[in-house]
Amino acid sequence: MTTVKDIGELELIARLTGGLAQRGDVAVGAGDDCAVVTMGADTDLVLTSDPVISGVHFLPNAESELIGRKALGRALSDIAAMGAEPRWALINLVAPPDTPVELIEDIYRGINDLAAEFSVAIAGGDVASGKTLELHLFGVGSLPHGSARLRSGAKAGDIVYVTGELGGSLISGKHLNVHPRIREGIMLRDWATAMIDVSDGLASEARHIAQMSGVGICLNEESIPISEVAVNADDGTTPLNHALCDGEDFELLFTIPESRQQEFEAAWLFHLKCSPIGKVTSTGCDVSLQDPNGVVRPIAERLGFTHFRSTPADNAPGHPYSSE
Amino acid sequence: MTTVKDIGELELIARLTGGLAQRGDVAVGAGDDCAVVTMGADTDLVLTSDPVISGVHFLPNAESELIGRKALGRALSDIAAMGAEPRWALINLVAPPDTPVELIEDIYRGINDLAAEFSVAIAGGDVASGKTLELHLFGVGSLPHGSARLRSGAKAGDIVYVTGELGGSLISGKHLNVHPRIREGIMLRDWATAMIDVSDGLASEARHIAQMSGVGICLNEESIPISEVAVNADDGTTPLNHALCDGEDFELLFTIPESRQQEFEAAWLFHLKCSPIGKVTSTGCDVSLQDPNGVVRPIAERLGFTHFRSTPADNAPGHPYSSE
Repeated sequence: MTTVKDIGELELIARLTGGLAQRGDVAVGAGDDCAVVTMGADTDLVLTSDPVISGVHFLPNAESELIGRKALGRALSDIAAMGAEPRWALINLVAPPDTPVELIEDIYRGINDLAAEFSVAIAGGDVASGKTLELHLFGVGSLPHGSARLRSGAKAGDIVYVTGELGGSLISGKHLNVHPRIREGIMLRDWATAMIDVSDGLASEARHIAQMSGVGICLNEESIPISEVAVNADDGTTPLNHALCDGEDFELLFTIPESRQQEFEAAWLFHLKCSPIGKVTSTGCDVSLQDPNGVVRPIAERLGFTHFRSTPADNAPGHPYSSE
Repeated sequence: MTTVKDIGELELIARLTGGLAQRGDVAVGAGDDCAVVTMGADTDLVLTSDPVISGVHFLPNAESELIGRKALGRALSDIAAMGAEPRWALINLVAPPDTPVELIEDIYRGINDLAAEFSVAIAGGDVASGKTLELHLFGVGSLPHGSARLRSGAKAGDIVYVTGELGGSLISGKHLNVHPRIREGIMLRDWATAMIDVSDGLASEARHIAQMSGVGICLNEESIPISEVAVNADDGTTPLNHALCDGEDFELLFTIPESRQQEFEAAWLFHLKCSPIGKVTSTGCDVSLQDPNGVVRPIAERLGFTHFRSTPADNAPGHPYSSE
């Protein structure tokens, strides 16, 4: 008997998504940040679903409102990574019978506050009894037909950018206090050739773009914006490794044609930092790293945390839990 | 401290849905079978999310493909109850690490088979590790703008109908082998004044229509179509009580104006049985029952199973688990 733990999350997903029922109006099925479906001639919808589970995505003592914020924030970050405007969300709540009602009300307050910030309606959902506190968020966004930014559009020569700063989200609490990059994503749908949100860690997300675009990505070590908390972590992991491998920064990683680089940087009027961190190459489908001496080496295949193979208890310090 | 168990599922839902973030394009929020949102001038979408949890909605030894069928079937039944055409679904899978991969593949086979039957695409989803096997299905359907059938449209004088036969779904396995009434629901959007799917039991669903329409409903005891398995159950519960209170028949309960009764019955060309079982009245917002002698009594407030207050172990025989 083969168990889920034996094959790991990625192989399980590969097996399950192989034979999914399809229809002609699905432009992008499983395998990107959201599914993309066609709604008439002018509009596409993006659809995403994200679980947030106690002990996996948050610790039982996490602040309740932030649990709610993260639950919706993960879905909104996926919608942002397509360049779409979020519109509606539904929530499945699973709760043990002895859960305090006030805790759940606080979680929903966190959800509603973030929803209001981005004009998202919580249109429905369901509740059920279960052993573990869980939230399953389903999000729907919309955008002009054909304008969704996928992981697969990067071209050799493109410049690789990332928003914000990376690393240490578990230490700083950024992994809970999610700020989905909605406005930035909507702007970027007119610029980016490929886009993804940084939920698994920079190295892993860059690899997704490389593999799905059929290109290589070379990151410039010195250009990667490392968060102060990662720089000061002093926990045995280097600041660079925090930035490359920590999950749940919920920033946007994207590629811009080199010919539009200057124009793009002039058009970026957000307060949020946006850093060129590397280049798309024509060689291989993997990620390499250029050190300060100009030496280029392949990034070790550190895909970070995947569910099933690692449980919270198994994980290295700094990764008590994470998400895909 | 007040816990979820103290207040029960219905009160919890009432508290959580009170302050949900909204937007102008949400025509119907929480409180019907699906949410209804506006997509341009011609089209509305219906959105629904349904959990299916081991030990709550199915027993651990249930046939794997039927677990999958039920997971999607519940969502499709909600979409049918709005009169919509189902289009896309996403799945969040939660699985313990020692779950056999073959079991999950069989569950997905059940999902895909039902999806193919109704031309639904499984457009995406997510997987996570957890203590209990769970599926969270998110379904999207569409229909012409303004045509969704709600729980709230019943008028005094309307005739109450139900499809199929009721009762004993847990004994017969109908609660797993779901046949969502999609084609019937689409036909009924041109006829029904109110519609709901029978997931909690006839008494409970009739009460939902009564309360949300501000009317009474009088059911004719002799007209209620009782399934053969409920008639023969011989388990201490009367066949009528099985039909009134067993959950998960996944039939459609709806109301038709009396003036259209003949025309409607002539237009019903499905093989599936469709029975007039009562009448909408102007008195009260509750359900009453007329016995064979013509005596009308209020139905006892037996809302059946609600999550949290009852766990599988607490339930009366015949209700080892159920759903809202």
